Amino acid sequence: ELPALQKRMRALAKQNLKFKKEFISFAEAKKLFSDQPYKLELINELHKNKEKISIYKTDSLFTDLCAGPHVASTKEVNHDAFKLEKIAGAYWRGDEKNPMLTRVYGLAFKTKKELDSQLKMEAEAEKRDHRKLGQELKIFMIDDLVGKGLPIWLPNGTIIKNEIEKLAVEMENEYGYKRVSTPHLAKEELYVKSGHLPYYADSMYPPMKMDDGTFYVKSMNCPHHHLVYKSEIRSWRDLPVRLAEYGTVYRNELSGTLAGLLRVRSLQMNDAHIYCRKDQIEQEFEKVLELNLKYFKIFGLKDYWFRLSKWSPKNKKKYINEPANWKSTESILRKMLKKKKVSFIEADDEAAFYGPKVDVQFKSVIGREESMSTIQLDFSAKKRFGLSYTDKNGKNNNDVFVIPRAPLSTHERFMAFLIEHYAGDFPAWLAPIQAAIIPISEKQNGYAAKILSVLKEYGVRTDIFESGQTLSKRVREAETQKIPYILVIGEKEENKKTINVRDRKTGKQEEMDVNKFVKKISEEIDSRK
Amino acid sequence: ELPALQKRMRALAKQNLKFKKEFISFAEAKKLFSDQPYKLELINELHKNKEKISIYKTDSLFTDLCAGPHVASTKEVNHDAFKLEKIAGAYWRGDEKNPMLTRVYGLAFKTKKELDSQLKMEAEAEKRDHRKLGQELKIFMIDDLVGKGLPIWLPNGTIIKNEIEKLAVEMENEYGYKRVSTPHLAKEELYVKSGHLPYYADSMYPPMKMDDGTFYVKSMNCPHHHLVYKSEIRSWRDLPVRLAEYGTVYRNELSGTLAGLLRVRSLQMNDAHIYCRKDQIEQEFEKVLELNLKYFKIFGLKDYWFRLSKWSPKNKKKYINEPANWKSTESILRKMLKKKKVSFIEADDEAAFYGPKVDVQFKSVIGREESMSTIQLDFSAKKRFGLSYTDKNGKNNNDVFVIPRAPLSTHERFMAFLIEHYAGDFPAWLAPIQAAIIPISEKQNGYAAKILSVLKEYGVRTDIFESGQTLSKRVREAETQKIPYILVIGEKEENKKTINVRDRKTGKQEEMDVNKFVKKISEEIDSRK
Repeated sequence: ELPALQKRMRALAKQNLKFKKEFISFAEAKKLFSDQPYKLELINELHKNKEKISIYKTDSLFTDLCAGPHVASTKEVNHDAFKLEKIAGAYWRGDEKNPMLTRVYGLAFKTKKELDSQLKMEAEAEKRDHRKLGQELKIFMIDDLVGKGLPIWLPNGTIIKNEIEKLAVEMENEYGYKRVSTPHLAKEELYVKSGHLPYYADSMYPPMKMDDGTFYVKSMNCPHHHLVYKSEIRSWRDLPVRLAEYGTVYRNELSGTLAGLLRVRSLQMNDAHIYCRKDQIEQEFEKVLELNLKYFKIFGLKDYWFRLSKWSPKNKKKYINEPANWKSTESILRKMLKKKKVSFIEADDEAAFYGPKVDVQFKSVIGREESMSTIQLDFSAKKRFGLSYTDKNGKNNNDVFVIPRAPLSTHERFMAFLIEHYAGDFPAWLAPIQAAIIPISEKQNGYAAKILSVLKEYGVRTDIFESGQTLSKRVREAETQKIPYILVIGEKEENKKTINVRDRKTGKQEEMDVNKFVKKISEEIDSRK
Repeated sequence: ELPALQKRMRALAKQNLKFKKEFISFAEAKKLFSDQPYKLELINELHKNKEKISIYKTDSLFTDLCAGPHVASTKEVNHDAFKLEKIAGAYWRGDEKNPMLTRVYGLAFKTKKELDSQLKMEAEAEKRDHRKLGQELKIFMIDDLVGKGLPIWLPNGTIIKNEIEKLAVEMENEYGYKRVSTPHLAKEELYVKSGHLPYYADSMYPPMKMDDGTFYVKSMNCPHHHLVYKSEIRSWRDLPVRLAEYGTVYRNELSGTLAGLLRVRSLQMNDAHIYCRKDQIEQEFEKVLELNLKYFKIFGLKDYWFRLSKWSPKNKKKYINEPANWKSTESILRKMLKKKKVSFIEADDEAAFYGPKVDVQFKSVIGREESMSTIQLDFSAKKRFGLSYTDKNGKNNNDVFVIPRAPLSTHERFMAFLIEHYAGDFPAWLAPIQAAIIPISEKQNGYAAKILSVLKEYGVRTDIFESGQTLSKRVREAETQKIPYILVIGEKEENKKTINVRDRKTGKQEEMDVNKFVKKISEEIDSRK
């Protein structure tokens, strides 16, 4: 009924109907709204404090209970710039014990242009919604038997997740990181040592008492990595030691706040900790910045800026008491941000307890601002965990600086972001299926199998859309799945030993030799374009 | 003092000293052992039931309290075939409240040959001990702050683990598996549905109560995979659906039983579940068998046999009541084991509740028998989880058979096995560092860096052993790390643009062009030899 209502509203808005406020007595009000129990409830309450009750009249057309204010006339409402959007159930007075009423949601702007722009953005956001696309493209599922906030990665999602991780592993290899793999659990004592317990117990999962102590699912990867660092004596030559892991951490969020991949209870983080000497902070921070920028380029992210969060010398309780380190490291971070010519802002009194940090803020394609990548500096770990190295003179040096960083955020958050960013239309290197093979009729099944095996041999992810249904239906299905290349093969192609390649993005169709296609798509995949 | 003791024992054994049993009174016994408080304790206890106490006399040399029996003469002891091995503390009567005594451990055989063979095996076992080598080769660590039974994979171990997983992914891709990735947690309700709760609660970790229910760390991956299967409507054409994951499961073992990688609380399993129609069981089981045999060949495992565990029609309580399925599937498994010409035994009344299974038993290099790979059949899941597919006539068919399989066991168990199997001497494809570059002097540092970058480009894992120490020390260090190839480069090699390649396994040394070496090692790595 919304369109009809809206039509009527627009017609009324075009007229010059006056809104007039009047005060009536309690008795009059009760009589006027005698058939509206909710309003009577309000009137009875208002009566406790007030003698007179205010109503509004729209010309002679409509009378309602209202405290105001109102516009003076319908003329003031731009009849082109509002829209009734949707309805939803809402408990009377927001209390779930009360009956459910229907609430109408709408938008109103000064100009039609503003309304249109908002509607366009909303449509885009809906089209790109990671929960909707995540389901349609079979990327992830959430099942009540496993629990909210604990997404299960379906085969398609697992492929994308693994491709992202493969990229991270390659890049981290190139930058001299070493991978570790740590358990998802730890004893209470570890988190007491790290300082998480008892302060952050609320955000941690409940403890599990075993025969030899109390265990928690991980709230952070850092303490585990610190133990690996400590597992051998490190010399000044060994530093920096860069330990990387897509480690999983757990947050005890309230179930009511959980939604899709953006608010979860289990997060697989693109984590790494760089252990370095003071004189290496600059070089290491620069490399991490470089790594971030390389990632942003690969994913085509352009609308971002950095935020340097600093301490406040006045806020002594909030920060670790190492003024010299605060000053020198903040100035190193600033220097490197300038050197890399990235746009950045500075925020006072926003650092972590243990050191300054640099976050990267993104503006998503639908205009939402998101904080994703982070680079931090930790100068509290060295004392808490007794991190040290042997210096040039053979002496024990405790001045180990830790750089925790997560350029690709968590798999969950980054996937949500990427689904929205690409509108599910993943580039070939990320696409779960990279090429769909569609034989026109059953006669080409043998040829289709041959093409499949050639593509598979070159590591191209492919699938045959068998001839159970009409050609157009199968092409449409491949398009719905947003498969980058559709290879149609008929009698002609089989005879000529070619394939008909349709590039879904450009819409172009081209007949070519299968080897040419392999070369083309392999280049595209390898270059992650 | 053991060698001295042993020498004396051998000398005595060569003589013909008689052992003679005598019975003495309680009073005599107390007098005889008056300076031995532990024996007095025994004598006092014996006195409660017996009038006379038995002692043994070794000629006139030695008298001791003993119930017997004894050999008649030291002649009967082969003086060449026993050995005192070690001592250990032992609480008097096994009670930790009692004082600790010293226990001498020894071995005795009939022949020297038997003793030698046992000692050789023990030495081999010690040399190959996965805990010792795991530490020396920096493969894993266990830290009390994280907890026993929760190994942390160090960089070297992570490389090996990832190579094994890469192999599994490749093979499973080839065999049409799809990968999924499921959370390490689930709600209580899932395990009630699967039947784990309340029956197996003792072996599960303690529950965690959250605001929306009770959660457990995973005890099995199957229920998660069943939910993925159920996440879409499956047609008969879609089957078999093969879902694979190196999924982690948790076991609440008592802390006292935990040891190295063989007894842990967290297990990363080479898991997969194949959902198939009844008419596909044969083909799928055969493929899984094939996959197992391929793995065994790659790892050079030869001493193994299969064990077919069957139901017992009499034991009605232990098994799901589907006699026709038991009979037909057991005969399929037997048929395929015969077809593949593998040696196997059959075991009655040893099946799982839900179906027959085939385990693979290995005899390890040190003669220990181990059960590792498993292939099972599950016909209880279909009902519990309502698994089904749409058949050719468009009807819902509930006859979905599940094949859970884990050819590579768990990362933990398989790694322990492999360390022992290779004595830490991993083939190139698994070796954490595949080639050590050792410049003879600092002058070759530049050339060493060039060689490094060439090898890295081709994906060879390598490291430069810098010239801080003598050449021989660095070569020894590379050998201790069991690095397959040692590349020594001096002035001569730099001038000739060659490297001096030392194959650690054969001990052979050969000067060659770097490209030739890259080709050689790449072939070795790619073929997983």
